[in-house]
Amino acid sequence: MRDTYHDELEDIGTTLVQMTRMVRSAMAKATTALLDGDLAAAERVISGDPAVDELRTGLDDRTFRIIARQQPVAADLRLLISSLHLSADLERMGDLATHIAKVARMRYPQIAVPTELRDVITAMGEVAQSLVRKVEHVIEGRDVELAGDIAAEDDTMDALHRKLFTLLLAPDWAHGTEAAIDLTLIGRYYERYADHAVSVARRIVFLVTGDRADAT
Amino acid sequence: MRDTYHDELEDIGTTLVQMTRMVRSAMAKATTALLDGDLAAAERVISGDPAVDELRTGLDDRTFRIIARQQPVAADLRLLISSLHLSADLERMGDLATHIAKVARMRYPQIAVPTELRDVITAMGEVAQSLVRKVEHVIEGRDVELAGDIAAEDDTMDALHRKLFTLLLAPDWAHGTEAAIDLTLIGRYYERYADHAVSVARRIVFLVTGDRADAT
Repeated sequence: MRDTYHDELEDIGTTLVQMTRMVRSAMAKATTALLDGDLAAAERVISGDPAVDELRTGLDDRTFRIIARQQPVAADLRLLISSLHLSADLERMGDLATHIAKVARMRYPQIAVPTELRDVITAMGEVAQSLVRKVEHVIEGRDVELAGDIAAEDDTMDALHRKLFTLLLAPDWAHGTEAAIDLTLIGRYYERYADHAVSVARRIVFLVTGDRADAT
Repeated sequence: MRDTYHDELEDIGTTLVQMTRMVRSAMAKATTALLDGDLAAAERVISGDPAVDELRTGLDDRTFRIIARQQPVAADLRLLISSLHLSADLERMGDLATHIAKVARMRYPQIAVPTELRDVITAMGEVAQSLVRKVEHVIEGRDVELAGDIAAEDDTMDALHRKLFTLLLAPDWAHGTEAAIDLTLIGRYYERYADHAVSVARRIVFLVTGDRADAT
């Protein structure tokens, strides 16, 4: 029975890594869809999101059953409760990638990102990829050191977000209100994706160190 | 021991209702701050948010300890796990009210909402209040019927959100890019606040009926 139990715990970690990979891939494709006006990529992100949602539902059900059946000790219970929060963050990251893909699809065959904003959006996409790749490593190995890098990358994302607003508010903005609205929302989606990545990293730090100051 | 246990469960419900009242009041004040350029109201929302966060932290800690100590039966465990999700949604609703208050404060002594958008933002604020008042009733009495009304009000919020975009994209929009960005974000904050309210309602329906179709 204990072996099954430990297999079940390990299986939760494996599913969380799998979800992380899926939402990383979704965001990579969404950024491509957005910058290149790639409709097929946008459609793949949108049609792929229910699989992330299903993984979460299945994971949360399994987590619940393990808690109900195994009466886990405090450390395992903390891990299981954390898994519920991690799966919620990861599912939301999938939603945010989908929102970006939907903007790309809505504007197709136009491209939603004007030329002078390509660099900042490209950079936001790269920071998102780098962040979630580190999150993947943190989940796999519970590497507390990487969590510090993740916070730093979140600062980079915030700086890019501010830069985006500066560009939108430049006196020579020539793309009208619709493009400004699109870019405001796109910027918000990347920023929230990064916030959820940071939230995942902090929870794992809390799991390992028990230090709430890092976790809130 | 069982009495303490049931007191603890009841106490969780009481805290959730308390959090719901706080985030309702925060959103009422944030809407006033936004529409009237009321700096004092904005400051009260912003300075009040940490109290919501602390309630959540305390609640989640208590929930964890009850699960660890009492090995609750499946129905109680479901309630306790749901409470973790409900507190997360409610905390986020507090954050979103705070975001709106911060836009009001940033534009003070100007008012961020141009005259022709007052009606739609007023309506969004009213739907938010009505929604969260129903959520309060649902949490207090687990009234599954009200959950249907809540979904309908969420549709109203979505319709108002679309109307807001129509107004921002009107050919005679005369308030420039900055106001369009402000209103895009404000609209998003109200919509997300409503989404979290719906999520709270659906979770409680799931608790009562066990019907996942309503809960996702």
